[in-house]
Amino acid sequence: MTDSVKYVLDERDIPRHWYNIVADLPVPPPPVLHPGTHQPVTPDDLAPIFPMAVIEQEVSREREIEIPGPVRDIYRQWRPSPLYRARRLEKMLDTPARIYYKYEGVSPAGSHKPNTAIAQAFYNKQEGIKRITTETGAGQWGSALSIAGAFFGLEIEVFMVKVSFQQKPYRRSFMETFGATCIASPSDLTAAGRAVLAEHPDSTGSLGIAISEAVERAVQRDDTKYALGSVLNHVMLHQTVIGLEAMKQFDLAGDYPDVVIAPTGGGSNFAGITFPFLGEQLRGGRKIELIAVEPSACPSLTRGRYAYDFGDTAHLTPLVKMHTLGSTYMPPGFHAGGLRYHGMAPLVSQVTDLGLVNPRAYQQVQCFEAGLQFAKAEGIIPAPEANHGVRAAIDEALRCKEEGVSRAILFNLCGHGNFDMQAYRDYLDGKLMDLEYDDGEIAMALAGLPSVA
Amino acid sequence: MTDSVKYVLDERDIPRHWYNIVADLPVPPPPVLHPGTHQPVTPDDLAPIFPMAVIEQEVSREREIEIPGPVRDIYRQWRPSPLYRARRLEKMLDTPARIYYKYEGVSPAGSHKPNTAIAQAFYNKQEGIKRITTETGAGQWGSALSIAGAFFGLEIEVFMVKVSFQQKPYRRSFMETFGATCIASPSDLTAAGRAVLAEHPDSTGSLGIAISEAVERAVQRDDTKYALGSVLNHVMLHQTVIGLEAMKQFDLAGDYPDVVIAPTGGGSNFAGITFPFLGEQLRGGRKIELIAVEPSACPSLTRGRYAYDFGDTAHLTPLVKMHTLGSTYMPPGFHAGGLRYHGMAPLVSQVTDLGLVNPRAYQQVQCFEAGLQFAKAEGIIPAPEANHGVRAAIDEALRCKEEGVSRAILFNLCGHGNFDMQAYRDYLDGKLMDLEYDDGEIAMALAGLPSVA
Repeated sequence: MTDSVKYVLDERDIPRHWYNIVADLPVPPPPVLHPGTHQPVTPDDLAPIFPMAVIEQEVSREREIEIPGPVRDIYRQWRPSPLYRARRLEKMLDTPARIYYKYEGVSPAGSHKPNTAIAQAFYNKQEGIKRITTETGAGQWGSALSIAGAFFGLEIEVFMVKVSFQQKPYRRSFMETFGATCIASPSDLTAAGRAVLAEHPDSTGSLGIAISEAVERAVQRDDTKYALGSVLNHVMLHQTVIGLEAMKQFDLAGDYPDVVIAPTGGGSNFAGITFPFLGEQLRGGRKIELIAVEPSACPSLTRGRYAYDFGDTAHLTPLVKMHTLGSTYMPPGFHAGGLRYHGMAPLVSQVTDLGLVNPRAYQQVQCFEAGLQFAKAEGIIPAPEANHGVRAAIDEALRCKEEGVSRAILFNLCGHGNFDMQAYRDYLDGKLMDLEYDDGEIAMALAGLPSVA
Repeated sequence: MTDSVKYVLDERDIPRHWYNIVADLPVPPPPVLHPGTHQPVTPDDLAPIFPMAVIEQEVSREREIEIPGPVRDIYRQWRPSPLYRARRLEKMLDTPARIYYKYEGVSPAGSHKPNTAIAQAFYNKQEGIKRITTETGAGQWGSALSIAGAFFGLEIEVFMVKVSFQQKPYRRSFMETFGATCIASPSDLTAAGRAVLAEHPDSTGSLGIAISEAVERAVQRDDTKYALGSVLNHVMLHQTVIGLEAMKQFDLAGDYPDVVIAPTGGGSNFAGITFPFLGEQLRGGRKIELIAVEPSACPSLTRGRYAYDFGDTAHLTPLVKMHTLGSTYMPPGFHAGGLRYHGMAPLVSQVTDLGLVNPRAYQQVQCFEAGLQFAKAEGIIPAPEANHGVRAAIDEALRCKEEGVSRAILFNLCGHGNFDMQAYRDYLDGKLMDLEYDDGEIAMALAGLPSVA
């Protein structure tokens, strides 16, 4: 067999439980703090925005949490997702490395996001909620939640960062096709949005602002909750289906990864593929290298501070301890919109702080270069976010070649680029430029961090 | 189990042979004629444009033709494609019908087209060819052949109908990402293109013109051949992997279709899913209803004549007997670009002429309406072409409800609509209009049919 290989699992191999890494951490996660009192939040504090089942998962220390039957039934539409051995790419690179990728682009939304969207919609429906509000950057998360809403008969209201709303009209059409409402943020529907518009009428928005708007809308109505597509513990939890399946597929392949790679925006893609392997390691199993890849223009893990910060711009959310560039930091407009967030998942931040993760930052042009190479070898055009993982995987494979060693490299191809062809157009036309973060702006944003005792 | 169900096959269940319906037809297909002499073409006549292995398949009467190992290895990237029981759609329609769909959108190009693109690229590579020219309408076929070219190290030159080239810039970017060249047709690269431009400088092109250009470019160069994405016998043959897999999946489901539905543009999608079932019937097996769905604005099966005609506008191709609206007929610019062809596959035409197929034509608005209903139930946005099949499947399911009977309805969901969101935008905005064919124009085009004794 010299061609690329797919490792297929049976539906029976879809995990029955999500994996909660909190159970295996050497120290418990720092508590989430109330934004006003700076005291640990209680479930009651979170009840206006999340259903109780989700709040329980957010604070759970159980190692395994059962995946509800109706969620698993829907997962079966595209799960188990395939694991591929990228032999054509190996050949193209002439590397002794064994390159594997898990492909989450087979989901109906084209990314890993439905793994948590379906679960969150289910829990909201179960608790009698009628409507979910959320934010979306590039549109992947909004798309996933729109599909989940259609399946469970929930209204979905998506605040989409205005620059993406304008640049990616087809993402809005996608969400509306499933019956969702999509609003450009900042909007005049919320006090948070109106405040931004009063000061900056031409604001193109940010994820932080869109989160403020969505949270505000959820709090206003009893039949409405809010959903977040990354960052929080329960989202990391839901995404572990990726890594749990990958472990079974490595059994099939008779191999085990030496290196696991994923891009990090809010952290859920990275957590999804790495936490099950990291859990093995923490329980005394084989040690592997974990590489978190972030954009140079929004480098929360490599340049941010590990400190308490708000998740949003209007400071409506609780305070979480995470790697952050400061909630007022506005990253430049590079193409991987899903990686333009000032913070990082608290759990990903914690394991990075514990020295269990090697973070790495790349510029966008080198990531698109890797994406084209991957497409030509494997036939799939990755999302710009995913290109960050592809770049690191190719670099690791080339390092194997230099060193003359064969390592097993696994990366998560978290989504396809079908809705990102303008970025590829720009790259093909030589118009895509590297964008640098501004040290001074990060310093200023970090100076504004809340002081927590 | 009340949720939608996926019937998964093992890789070992990818067919080892394509199925050739010619072996089971009650009468042999009418011969293909030389455009000059009107005598049956010989393999030598076709040698300048097709590799010999493809020509042999074009005229073969063998029932089974082996799928080469390297083609099967690549099929394994996405095949066997899933068969779904659309239980959520059944529930939404409150129908006793059992609705199944085979989903070809899981391929790297997002449609069924790679089934033949991979095979054709393989045979060209095997015979030492360096470059393949082709045409594309909406871009699905050009995308598939571009991927196949990248896999086999072949240059791909795609003449894209100018109106689509302008309206769907992302399809061009898609092809170029895989290293293909994409040219707006009519172009000044060919005599055929220049002739059109001399008469109509603002011509927005047609599939017939683009075929003329691609064939001309292939004939000019010894290291170059031409590939067609539908219509011809070998393309129908390659697509039968769809139906052959579906038969095994129905075994798994413990069911058998009463009705099989597919949209028809050039005919390969329809042939791919129906011919294996039709072959069973022709060999004395169970009789099933086959419904070919075409656009009202380009109704070759329901309004065309079964007669010898050219495949292209410049009359460079051989003459084939098919349902045709006349090679000069210019269909209006509706959104399912893959269905805008004046003719129909000779094999699909023949079985329709034999009374084995029920053709049906739909307007585009009712097809998009069905597409949205399907998306909300099943989570997948169909391509506009595929919406024609969805419409017919929903109508058949509603007929079951009226009649109080349960029938098994199978349709081929031949591709996703990720690159067709402008059409959905227009539908959502109420701007999508039905477009009617013009009786007079069809009559005029039919009057120009070549007279064949």
